Amino acid sequence: MSGSTFGHLFRVTTFGESHGPALGAIVDGCPPRLALSPDDIQPDLDRRKPGQGKLSSQRREKDQVRILSGVVDGLTTGTPIALQFDNTDARSKAYDHLREVYRPSHADFTYDAKFGHRDVAGGGRSSARETAARVAAGAVARKLLGEAFGIAIVGWVSRAAGIDAAVNADTVTRAEVATCGEVQCPDPAAAASMTAAIDAARLDGDTVGGVISCVARGVPAGWGNPVFDKLDACLASAMMSLPAAKGVETGSGFGGVDMRGSEHNDPFVVGPGGEVMTSSNRSGGIQGGISNGMPIFTRVAFKPVATIFKPQQTVTTAGEATVLSAKGRHDPCVLPRAVVIVEAMLALVLCDAWLTHRGQTGA
Amino acid sequence: MSGSTFGHLFRVTTFGESHGPALGAIVDGCPPRLALSPDDIQPDLDRRKPGQGKLSSQRREKDQVRILSGVVDGLTTGTPIALQFDNTDARSKAYDHLREVYRPSHADFTYDAKFGHRDVAGGGRSSARETAARVAAGAVARKLLGEAFGIAIVGWVSRAAGIDAAVNADTVTRAEVATCGEVQCPDPAAAASMTAAIDAARLDGDTVGGVISCVARGVPAGWGNPVFDKLDACLASAMMSLPAAKGVETGSGFGGVDMRGSEHNDPFVVGPGGEVMTSSNRSGGIQGGISNGMPIFTRVAFKPVATIFKPQQTVTTAGEATVLSAKGRHDPCVLPRAVVIVEAMLALVLCDAWLTHRGQTGA
Amino acid sequence: MSGSTFGHLFRVTTFGESHGPALGAIVDGCPPRLALSPDDIQPDLDRRKPGQGKLSSQRREKDQVRILSGVVDGLTTGTPIALQFDNTDARSKAYDHLREVYRPSHADFTYDAKFGHRDVAGGGRSSARETAARVAAGAVARKLLGEAFGIAIVGWVSRAAGIDAAVNADTVTRAEVATCGEVQCPDPAAAASMTAAIDAARLDGDTVGGVISCVARGVPAGWGNPVFDKLDACLASAMMSLPAAKGVETGSGFGGVDMRGSEHNDPFVVGPGGEVMTSSNRSGGIQGGISNGMPIFTRVAFKPVATIFKPQQTVTTAGEATVLSAKGRHDPCVLPRAVVIVEAMLALVLCDAWLTHRGQTGA
Amino acid sequence: MSGSTFGHLFRVTTFGESHGPALGAIVDGCPPRLALSPDDIQPDLDRRKPGQGKLSSQRREKDQVRILSGVVDGLTTGTPIALQFDNTDARSKAYDHLREVYRPSHADFTYDAKFGHRDVAGGGRSSARETAARVAAGAVARKLLGEAFGIAIVGWVSRAAGIDAAVNADTVTRAEVATCGEVQCPDPAAAASMTAAIDAARLDGDTVGGVISCVARGVPAGWGNPVFDKLDACLASAMMSLPAAKGVETGSGFGGVDMRGSEHNDPFVVGPGGEVMTSSNRSGGIQGGISNGMPIFTRVAFKPVATIFKPQQTVTTAGEATVLSAKGRHDPCVLPRAVVIVEAMLALVLCDAWLTHRGQTGA
Repeated sequence: MSGSTFGHLFRVTTFGESHGPALGAIVDGCPPRLALSPDDIQPDLDRRKPGQGKLSSQRREKDQVRILSGVVDGLTTGTPIALQFDNTDARSKAYDHLREVYRPSHADFTYDAKFGHRDVAGGGRSSARETAARVAAGAVARKLLGEAFGIAIVGWVSRAAGIDAAVNADTVTRAEVATCGEVQCPDPAAAASMTAAIDAARLDGDTVGGVISCVARGVPAGWGNPVFDKLDACLASAMMSLPAAKGVETGSGFGGVDMRGSEHNDPFVVGPGGEVMTSSNRSGGIQGGISNGMPIFTRVAFKPVATIFKPQQTVTTAGEATVLSAKGRHDPCVLPRAVVIVEAMLALVLCDAWLTHRGQTGA
Repeated sequence: MSGSTFGHLFRVTTFGESHGPALGAIVDGCPPRLALSPDDIQPDLDRRKPGQGKLSSQRREKDQVRILSGVVDGLTTGTPIALQFDNTDARSKAYDHLREVYRPSHADFTYDAKFGHRDVAGGGRSSARETAARVAAGAVARKLLGEAFGIAIVGWVSRAAGIDAAVNADTVTRAEVATCGEVQCPDPAAAASMTAAIDAARLDGDTVGGVISCVARGVPAGWGNPVFDKLDACLASAMMSLPAAKGVETGSGFGGVDMRGSEHNDPFVVGPGGEVMTSSNRSGGIQGGISNGMPIFTRVAFKPVATIFKPQQTVTTAGEATVLSAKGRHDPCVLPRAVVIVEAMLALVLCDAWLTHRGQTGA
Repeated sequence: MSGSTFGHLFRVTTFGESHGPALGAIVDGCPPRLALSPDDIQPDLDRRKPGQGKLSSQRREKDQVRILSGVVDGLTTGTPIALQFDNTDARSKAYDHLREVYRPSHADFTYDAKFGHRDVAGGGRSSARETAARVAAGAVARKLLGEAFGIAIVGWVSRAAGIDAAVNADTVTRAEVATCGEVQCPDPAAAASMTAAIDAARLDGDTVGGVISCVARGVPAGWGNPVFDKLDACLASAMMSLPAAKGVETGSGFGGVDMRGSEHNDPFVVGPGGEVMTSSNRSGGIQGGISNGMPIFTRVAFKPVATIFKPQQTVTTAGEATVLSAKGRHDPCVLPRAVVIVEAMLALVLCDAWLTHRGQTGA
Repeated sequence: MSGSTFGHLFRVTTFGESHGPALGAIVDGCPPRLALSPDDIQPDLDRRKPGQGKLSSQRREKDQVRILSGVVDGLTTGTPIALQFDNTDARSKAYDHLREVYRPSHADFTYDAKFGHRDVAGGGRSSARETAARVAAGAVARKLLGEAFGIAIVGWVSRAAGIDAAVNADTVTRAEVATCGEVQCPDPAAAASMTAAIDAARLDGDTVGGVISCVARGVPAGWGNPVFDKLDACLASAMMSLPAAKGVETGSGFGGVDMRGSEHNDPFVVGPGGEVMTSSNRSGGIQGGISNGMPIFTRVAFKPVATIFKPQQTVTTAGEATVLSAKGRHDPCVLPRAVVIVEAMLALVLCDAWLTHRGQTGA
């Protein structure tokens, strides 16, 4: 319980700092005999990596993943899979001026308060760069879920800079999101407006926030648990653990609280194959903490990026008022790069829920 | 990892069904030598219990807690504290007609899908009655936090049936909430409107949802962890594990995503005692997953109660379409009774974060 | 991680003190739809309970188990099974003289050192009475393993007061042990000598120790894990967590260390049904931390009971030298009553290993 | 719960195979601001590495540790410390003939039974090479314990090839063991006999087993837990998780079972500084699962090495009888190299016990 491990049976431990020599993830508990190579992981890492356009940081990292253990003859062995990649474009000098000042709404002050010192360069462990390790691990989970159940996990930017996108969660594909441009929003008109708004903020030395939506289709009924380890509780924990996340919803979320029960309830109906399904999905695929076979649907709120290029009031580590102006390379909006991270976390949650369900019930 | 245990060092395990003989919680890992008696716990249980007015179920349970272990000479021993209370007013007959039908937006179908059968009476383990055990455990955590740090945890209904309350999170007290009437909203005008709206829904055989806000004041800086076990991730898990919860936020939440970074960032300032604090609190007291000394602030979205008295379309366990009309005693709105539950979960999260922080750092 | 929970997927939490109102166990994660009633549990509790002869304490407890949750229509629901029984014959007065003195080789001093005070009556939580809750939980595990795999778990006293028993671990049955007399040793000659030796010690106001052997036959190959959670590591933890345990072995144990590899290795052979098996079993059914299909075999060393009726040198809680003479009702030898406890722990270890293996591999 | 993580607050995850590119350990939860460099770790790795004499395998590995994360400005940050080293002298060809045959008393068959395939080269994950990662992590724990409490952990070979050593556990130092020759036994006469016996076995193409003793002096009273997570239970799990371990004892162990209580009990006395201590230490420093301030003492039984150069009967993966003759480079006795591994595991157990004790009690 020291923060860097996620999951119970499908268990991921990450390590590494923004400007250290390397980052990585250990995936323990992976089912054996899954065909796995770096080619299964690299595409997701590539979607997350910076330096891909004007909406993201200009830091250039290849994030080329190596598999150091857990795969033999091209198949997972069931023992820990170590995934690792190097930092190659860190410029720690850009952070020297931050050694004695707390950046507002960053983790500088709280890390100091907790640990008595902190890794100034690149924000150290608090950097969103850590999420690359999650993406690598998530790619393993995604492959497992795809092969075993045909589960498709698709995320997209559904709101940015106050602009909403119209996207059909029941049909949107990963390919549509991937080909919709840097902003990862498959509503072309909204994407254009978002792009313009993000760029405008960037030119102002400012940043924006937004919402990522994510759906998992094909999840069987029965995953999750009653009470504390409800599937939505695990999912909420996973999403809220992302840097800059300030809120998470499943199904109708905050938008459903004003409905009456008679409007909000999802009627059960008999599906085309005789299966039990619901005619609406305000439950977001989860009832009583357990999947019901409908698409799992979640939305995650991301605050605007804390690093801005405008002068800000803050204090020094010595407790004196000062004014800070940021330097370095930073994203004006994390949403586009965070889509694949949200997908990865959902994949990790589902994979762990699958294995624990199978453990208890044999299903 | 089978669902009924919460926490790492301050660890709570609950058991019991809505209509079984008894429910309870085992609190393991409690610091020793805390003065503890049923009088510390009963007031919170009393706030949660049903049958207190027209806004809640007419089921009458005393929920009189017994301490079966873990306290000697009036002090906690450091070993498991078993808290238990009986079910005395269960009327299982009222559920017989549900044996072969799935109630919409309840856990009937998913429990069957997962476990192959379910406890029909009162919803069994999926009943919100389970939360009484959480409240009992939470009262222990709350007392610890109060004695060690003077932490005050206050929750209230901030929105119900579409009506918002105006409440100052920095100053509102538990006493104000307790004395504001059955609806647990300390804004008198909003409380009156909410009460009327809930009662109107009840008379319609319908239900409403809403939002509970909760604040913890006095939490020291440094609690929580980087990466997966961020304080807000633990809090999100705790809140989303509550029955009917569909969303959770900390700080600015979904409302902050449309701001620019320059508006959203919380400037650091030097406080009256020379301490580092922030002049705004959009971070909700948590930065980088770690408390910063400002009030912890969270909001939880609750859907409208799934049990309505209007006829609903659904299917039988045999997979045939049918129409269901509910019977029995049910709440038209869970929000008022859920306030103390949200407070309890926040107390459990904080207590566990305190002990794990102390374990790693000695602070 | 506060001591009173065992297991990962099949998870047991115990509570209760020697002289408190009640003790119990919460079994979380049990597979659903196991037929379960108190009749499945009571026989094991009866084997453990005191007051059955001259070899055990004269305290009389019925240990009549109640199932408070987790079973409906006679079948487990998959949610927590609460097992509970009352203390009815505690005589706390007999412990008053111990309030200010530390009993040698008991937990009095260490509990004070850890927690700042302790439950004097009956030793509180450190009493072997706690193991009754383990036995109740173990009975559930044993039934699961029996029904799913036909696994038979049989323990016996293989050494007491320096007397060894000759028992064939491959064939000994629970019935043979049960009918062999109070000492639970199925070698009649050894049993008679042990009984005489224990009784002689009792008459001297003294106590004896010994070794319990336990075998599980019918365990499939593949259970357990590489590295830290090896099946034998889990088993060692389980056994060493028993009161008075000072050592644990699997297979050849300490007795095998003087062999050469050529003597010790278990040759693989083709079994009668074409299966791979070994012609000897010095591995004790576990190789590389994983079961190999041969009988799991373990031995547990128990020190002589710490409570003796001879005067002993010790110190007071104020740190002054004193002489202590025990009062009350105590066992001259724990071995006979501990047989069913060792069996219970082995059942818990195997059940958890089964579910985690099934979770990862689907087997 | 997938096998490769140890500990709760001080938590170690290892990865890597015998012939993969690299091995390593992630240490999560380390207290911050510990001065740490590779120089603190390398000496322990050097003690474990092969190729140091005729008693060990001729494989030559530098095991040169790199710290990839978790240390900044020479101090631990409190976030994961990634320790890593490469395999540079693997000769996988030597294992090709084992692809279709099960080595007796190795993990070949059980890994196949569990996972459906296995890493043949060097035994993959089941290789004792994995323990190098434990040694690296243990060195961090050892430094912490030394700096915070002056705890000294010393292990030695106390029995090998049937030869016992006479060593005073209360006074033996690490330096004495280190300078006593390759066999790591600080009794010169016994060391000479052991060396001769091991070499004789080697020349026979055979192997021997033995016992390692280990002591930790300076452990404060109060560490450990009641019931399942007793300090000795954690220690037993740690030791039994080592390759080739078949038994573990604390204090008097199996040797104490024939004593009477009046001989075995450790009388409490007032120590020279007024502290409570015991005049004997048959408890091995642990009473009721909690440290009592006396030296922690444990003994671990290791079977003779399974790889022998004599022909052995076994079966193929196709289930046919065959005869196997080993090739490659192997240790005739693991004991000398395992001393530092046993020390490392004891350090990990104690470090975790320290932090969890501090978490619950603030001590």
